[in-house]
Order: sequence, then structure tokens, then C-alpha cells
Amino acid sequence: MQQTQTVIEIATSGQGLYEITRPFRHFVVGTGIERGLATVYCRHTSCSLLIQENADPDVQTDLITALHRLAPAEGPWVHTTEGPDDMPGHIKTMLTGVSLHVPVRQGALALGTWQGIYLIEHRARPHRREVILQFLGHRAGEQSRAR
Amino acid sequence: MQQTQTVIEIATSGQGLYEITRPFRHFVVGTGIERGLATVYCRHTSCSLLIQENADPDVQTDLITALHRLAPAEGPWVHTTEGPDDMPGHIKTMLTGVSLHVPVRQGALALGTWQGIYLIEHRARPHRREVILQFLGHRAGEQSRAR
Amino acid sequence: MQQTQTVIEIATSGQGLYEITRPFRHFVVGTGIERGLATVYCRHTSCSLLIQENADPDVQTDLITALHRLAPAEGPWVHTTEGPDDMPGHIKTMLTGVSLHVPVRQGALALGTWQGIYLIEHRARPHRREVILQFLGHRAGEQSRAR
Repeated sequence: MQQTQTVIEIATSGQGLYEITRPFRHFVVGTGIERGLATVYCRHTSCSLLIQENADPDVQTDLITALHRLAPAEGPWVHTTEGPDDMPGHIKTMLTGVSLHVPVRQGALALGTWQGIYLIEHRARPHRREVILQFLGHRAGEQSRAR
Repeated sequence: MQQTQTVIEIATSGQGLYEITRPFRHFVVGTGIERGLATVYCRHTSCSLLIQENADPDVQTDLITALHRLAPAEGPWVHTTEGPDDMPGHIKTMLTGVSLHVPVRQGALALGTWQGIYLIEHRARPHRREVILQFLGHRAGEQSRAR
Repeated sequence: MQQTQTVIEIATSGQGLYEITRPFRHFVVGTGIERGLATVYCRHTSCSLLIQENADPDVQTDLITALHRLAPAEGPWVHTTEGPDDMPGHIKTMLTGVSLHVPVRQGALALGTWQGIYLIEHRARPHRREVILQFLGHRAGEQSRAR
């Protein structure tokens, strides 16, 4: 059983979805590992992780609209010192989460046909965000010995 | 450390919760592994995974009602080409998630007394859904050597 | 690759956030493991897990307010036999989740600067809650041999 970790930095330019499927795929292939568990972790409290449809960009528009309805800027929040987008950002992060995993099969992420992996930036201004990719698994030969 | 993966297919008959605790338990017992981490992954963007109460069916009715209130079919969505249940399905999937894990102790899933594992179908029509079960852990003897 | 599990019990005194970062850090350091994956699992259906800001307590107040707006006690629920805080507790648990993970790097949880790990109690009365901490990873020397 092997493991590898890497940190990727994502420069966001305000609220929206930022796809990280490609660097994640690249990382998994680079490990040479055949089968295992890939995890993603977001080190922030006002941006989060999501696996969602990567075909029609309208879906992303609607996901952002939906989050705004659930955590409106004009809500009855008491934590307002960091701006009107901050507390809604924390709530949206609570609802979507900062840790997720994807199985790895035959050396590739086992995403469904329409699934992409996204960082969702909930703040209005640009930020630099850190995401940790981690992979635990067996190489091809090792895997067959291990079973 | 061993690992095993399997794909199960769930035939859904429209919106609702479909319990997968039993095939998941069966899978874990079949591995002969004593202690480890079991993961579940849903390969879709309009159905999701949930661990919730498996006693009173009224709870499931209310969970579906709650999701409908959070992502109403009549919402101001722009992605409407796939029908009125599609965009709400994506939003409900965002709010509940497609990956989760359960620890394994003494050869069994360490679910709480009232916890069951469910696939939630968010679409109105029947679908065939793929869920990946994965297990990383030690067999009984191996575990004692490894510590 | 090593693994360790432990169960911690949290005595809650009603609705609110209960930070478990410290016992979790203590557990990870105690394993002597350098690099790996730490997981947390909550064995209940009306309390859940959250990684959120641990600086300004007002954030916690607003998170609780936000959850109440999303799952109001006076909602149109049919499952009401266990009191007005029960069904909202299930819904809030559905929206926040009972399993999460944090990577471990250099022998420590790789939490972001402002991140703390919390159990959220959704019930009004005090409860005793069980949370399973689990750690899979390599010790310092073992890790270098394994790569």
C-alpha cells in the first residue's frame, strides 16, 4: 500500500465554480497506482468542494443561485465584520463540505460520465486557495500480491 | 493492508430513498477484513448518498419534503432542458453529496443503532444507478502483526 | 501502513457546536504516524460533523440560525412523535453529514489556519454522542521505505 500527497493552489477570481478534475487526474496518473482511494481536502472555511455536472455551464449558474437562496447576503447574520459575502460563504461551505473522495480503478479516477470535481469560491473577491490531493493504493503488481 | 472494490447497480423507480445497507454489509463481511475503512461512491449528478434513520418511514417522507423546499421544481432555474426535476436533482445532490465512509470494527460496519445507508434518487423517472463500494483494511491476523 | 481507531464520547448540553479538534489532534499525535488519512464518523442521525471557522463565536451563532431557517421546527413534518426538534435534527444532519476526513502531514492534522472540527448537536436536550476517530498511515521510517 502506497500513499502520496500534494498541495495545489487555485487562484479564484470571485464567486463561482473552478474545475480541478484535470490536475487531480494528472496527479493520480503520476503516482503509477492502479487501485485505491483518492481524497480531496479544502483548507478554508468560505470555499468548498463539489462533484457535479461538467457538461452544461447553466448548471453551474443555477447551483450558485441555489446557494444564494439558501444563504442570502441579506440574511439576519450577526457576523458581518468581514463583509456581506463572508457569513453566507461560511454557510455555503457548511452545506457543501471541504472533504470528499473518489475511488481509483484501473489507474484512473472512477468519476461518472458527467461528473467533474470543483472548488466553489463563495467570496466576492479573488483568493488563493489550497487544496490537498491524497492517494492511498496499490501499484499494479503489488495489488495482485496483496490480495 | 488489503483493499477490495465492487460496483453495485440500483434500479430506482423515481424519487425516494433506497436503502443499500444490506448489500454493503454483505460486501464487508465477504472481504474477511476485521478493521478498516469502508467507502461508498455514487457515480451520478442527480442522485446522492445519505446515512439516516432507518426506523420510521415518515422520516424519509419528511427528508424528501425538506429537499423539495430547498430546491423547488418551480425555482428560477436556467437549466431546464432536461425537465423540471433535473436542476432540482443537481441541487439536492450538491447538498447531500456523492461520497461517504463508514469505519469497520470487528468485521462489521460501525453504523449507529438507527443508521442506514441510502441512495436518494432525485429524478422522477426510474433510473439504473451505479454505486462503488470500497474497503481498505487489515485481516484479523494481519492486523495484529501490523500494529 | 498502520491503522488505529478510537471512540470518543461527547456530552452535549443542547443545540450548538462542540469543538473536537483537541482530542482529535491528541489522538493523531498519539499514533506516532507521520503521514496519512484521518477520518471522523458520527454514529447518530440528529447530530452531525462540521469543519468550520474557530475564531469568532458569532459564526457559530449564524450557522445555527442558518440551519434553523433551512429546517424550521414549525415545518410541515409528519414525523413529530419525538418532539419538534427531532425531524429538523434529521434534516440538519442530512445537510451537513456524519463522515469527514482530514489529511495528516508531518505528524499533524492538515487543517487550515481557521478550521476547527465540530460536532453539531441538533437536539434541544443534552445527549451523549459517540464519534469514531480513525487513522490510516505510515510511520516516519516506514513511509520512506514504502515509497
